[in-house]
Amino acid sequence: MPTNRRTIRIEWGDCDPAGIVYYPRYFAIFDHSTVLLLERALGMTKQKLYETYDFNGYPVVETRARFLLPTRYCDDVVIETSIAAVGRASFRLEHRLTKDGALAVEGSETRVWVAHDPARPGRLKALPMPADVVARLKR
Amino acid sequence: MPTNRRTIRIEWGDCDPAGIVYYPRYFAIFDHSTVLLLERALGMTKQKLYETYDFNGYPVVETRARFLLPTRYCDDVVIETSIAAVGRASFRLEHRLTKDGALAVEGSETRVWVAHDPARPGRLKALPMPADVVARLKR
Amino acid sequence: MPTNRRTIRIEWGDCDPAGIVYYPRYFAIFDHSTVLLLERALGMTKQKLYETYDFNGYPVVETRARFLLPTRYCDDVVIETSIAAVGRASFRLEHRLTKDGALAVEGSETRVWVAHDPARPGRLKALPMPADVVARLKR
Amino acid sequence: MPTNRRTIRIEWGDCDPAGIVYYPRYFAIFDHSTVLLLERALGMTKQKLYETYDFNGYPVVETRARFLLPTRYCDDVVIETSIAAVGRASFRLEHRLTKDGALAVEGSETRVWVAHDPARPGRLKALPMPADVVARLKR
Repeated sequence: MPTNRRTIRIEWGDCDPAGIVYYPRYFAIFDHSTVLLLERALGMTKQKLYETYDFNGYPVVETRARFLLPTRYCDDVVIETSIAAVGRASFRLEHRLTKDGALAVEGSETRVWVAHDPARPGRLKALPMPADVVARLKR
Repeated sequence: MPTNRRTIRIEWGDCDPAGIVYYPRYFAIFDHSTVLLLERALGMTKQKLYETYDFNGYPVVETRARFLLPTRYCDDVVIETSIAAVGRASFRLEHRLTKDGALAVEGSETRVWVAHDPARPGRLKALPMPADVVARLKR
Repeated sequence: MPTNRRTIRIEWGDCDPAGIVYYPRYFAIFDHSTVLLLERALGMTKQKLYETYDFNGYPVVETRARFLLPTRYCDDVVIETSIAAVGRASFRLEHRLTKDGALAVEGSETRVWVAHDPARPGRLKALPMPADVVARLKR
Repeated sequence: MPTNRRTIRIEWGDCDPAGIVYYPRYFAIFDHSTVLLLERALGMTKQKLYETYDFNGYPVVETRARFLLPTRYCDDVVIETSIAAVGRASFRLEHRLTKDGALAVEGSETRVWVAHDPARPGRLKALPMPADVVARLKR
């Protein structure tokens, strides 16, 4: 199944007064890796997805992460993201963030293909993913 | 055990192009609730903690969250945070974020009392929490 | 002309490894003060504004700030925001952030009432503000 | 004088519900460009700087920016940063962010070489920059 790997440098502004990455930033890093992975797997940007399919996004419905080693400003870290499971209306991703080859953070998330729910304004409801989306995520 | 409850208004800058809260922001919201809860439980700010005890922080080592309902700019949400378990060197917190009384996000996190590890520069190691800290977290 | 005043506590996650507020955060604080001020001056939320008027936002086109005193985690700061000038399609705001009565940051920003420019996709163009909006901003 | 040029892709999480970059993010982007520029000009990371010189940082004391064109998720933008002036205790930088060659944002900032002020706890005071730092910033 599709994977994505990128290297980023931890920025000064990613870190807190203890000098280590402020952990909500890891989720922003993971989110961008997911966006990049889906762009490549589906062959189009998120904006193009919105134009192509009748849906309103693929929000996270559940996530977890373990933080094993601290990372700091100037660390170059590698984030590897892969699709771990594909369901009818949802899919699961796994992230591994390593520093000098050592696992620093590992996380996973489940995302759901959704549309606005006309019956409940402001709410979202799960939709079966289009067959070609499923096929591409499983490829 | 200690709890904390606060109400915040979702800001424009908390939200993404889909119009809903960018989920890493929830972890920043939870983190601040934890800081506030510990301030009150321990009777001092995080800065004072650093001066009082020979340690270097209480970072998150594991967290998870489920996102049940979207929240948006201008929503007033309530975050309730409680200490769920206290160990020798770690403790666990639970967060519930509700909108109009309905559960929108629930999460939990485990934090560890740490010090810099002199044997491994850049690493942190778990320390037993001081007895009065344990007593106050369990009160 | 309308003003807004609020007190916030600087959060751990607002600060950088030097222990002081990461300065981009001040602009997020100012932005939210502007949103709150316009909500009150115009008597409706930003979302309601979008529904009421045929426009696409009031983005910042120019801003500046001076940072006079550092602020840190746990500081309680006051932000006072006022409308300084109202033009045909734009308006200017001023912000003062004080700590214990001392001026820590002062900034200003110019915002423009805009719509998507049909002649140039992806661009925005300035629009004259509706008369009642002008009247309320000047009140 | 030293310059720095880098290309970044605007991320989903950089954008607000209007679909354009939330402007405080531009300052975070500029800040990182400044850090990178100083690293290269001075031949060491910010952490190494702290170890090498008896000072406590080079915070921004004044900044301004103009926002000419909106940028959005998936835009590839180029940020060019240069040192525009070097004084005894301060220096000024200029940033140009372009999209497809068109200027989207331009900004400048003044930074001061500071130390903690022993006479006024919590305050910072300007220090003359070391001669070799001045020489390298002017090179």
